[in-house]
Amino acid sequence: MSKGEQTREVIVERAAQLFSRKGYFGASLSDLAQETGLGKSGFYNHFKSKDEIAAQAFEYSIKHISQQIADALLDKTNAIERLLALTRVYQNLIEEPFLEGGCPVLNTAVESDDALPQLRELTRKAMDDWQALVQRIVNKGIKNGEIQPEIDSADFATIFISTLEGSIMMSKLYGDPVHIRRAVAFLTNYISTNLKAKV
Amino acid sequence: MSKGEQTREVIVERAAQLFSRKGYFGASLSDLAQETGLGKSGFYNHFKSKDEIAAQAFEYSIKHISQQIADALLDKTNAIERLLALTRVYQNLIEEPFLEGGCPVLNTAVESDDALPQLRELTRKAMDDWQALVQRIVNKGIKNGEIQPEIDSADFATIFISTLEGSIMMSKLYGDPVHIRRAVAFLTNYISTNLKAKV
Repeated sequence: MSKGEQTREVIVERAAQLFSRKGYFGASLSDLAQETGLGKSGFYNHFKSKDEIAAQAFEYSIKHISQQIADALLDKTNAIERLLALTRVYQNLIEEPFLEGGCPVLNTAVESDDALPQLRELTRKAMDDWQALVQRIVNKGIKNGEIQPEIDSADFATIFISTLEGSIMMSKLYGDPVHIRRAVAFLTNYISTNLKAKV
Repeated sequence: MSKGEQTREVIVERAAQLFSRKGYFGASLSDLAQETGLGKSGFYNHFKSKDEIAAQAFEYSIKHISQQIADALLDKTNAIERLLALTRVYQNLIEEPFLEGGCPVLNTAVESDDALPQLRELTRKAMDDWQALVQRIVNKGIKNGEIQPEIDSADFATIFISTLEGSIMMSKLYGDPVHIRRAVAFLTNYISTNLKAKV
């Protein structure tokens, strides 16, 4: 990575933190200029617009989570273990957050759905990828006899992601990890009891 | 209701629609002045600040949902039926929305958690009330022998609300009701199978 690329990465990371706390609309250009250390004129030397840095900050955040997912799944081959490892990646968005604002997909989904088509497209893409990952794990688990064959992987992907994201919203609202912990405990039990193939 | 109160209610309702689509930060004072039909100077004759109208718009939205909940529960005495009726109130936030932007508690929670202490307090209060309602239904159901006695009502309230709110987020992101429908189907099955007392 060149010096210029490193500088840009630090800038994008700071912007990601700011957007994470304040949202797209809540983070003003002055905030961005100050938080990135660029100043207003410097900001426009690096980025065409707020849209451009917001898109890059979102992509940066997603790349970070994708890496955490890859690390969590690395040594797991069994579908049940892989799903449980995935719950812990979401739990870490509250318990060991790399972004103060919780989950970037949740935040950007809620803010962009009616108002920001470009960010909404990036968020749909990230959500598509999460659903596809859960579905692949479930379908492979069924094929390998680890998961009960009647499980519908698309249905389960919605429930899995909804429960985790809804509880992240609650934990962030109260500043209390109890809600994500309850969601992970619930899903762990549900996966072990209702998804896991009977031996 | 006096003429003045009626006018104010119409204004607050229009502001609630605007905040619902664009969020607190996304709705500018110009947007508010235009959407409410007040113009900028008229706006400040009615409201001290954006904070004031945002709080009133949020309260208006919550009052509306509370009325829908009261209506849905009116003729239901059994705890299982009451929980199922409650899932349909959340489903209607997507399928028969009174606000274009989906669920005001979800939207305001995500936007306010790190950035807007006053709105965050109102949102916590609304979420407290929802959790307390679910807990009361479950605890009364246990007392009446309708719900299995080992169910933890606080745990269940988190899972119930998280799954519904997370799936509202997904349905809004894609403009597709499939996710809230999956969540309601899942909870209906879970409540009937895992909560309902065995006869």
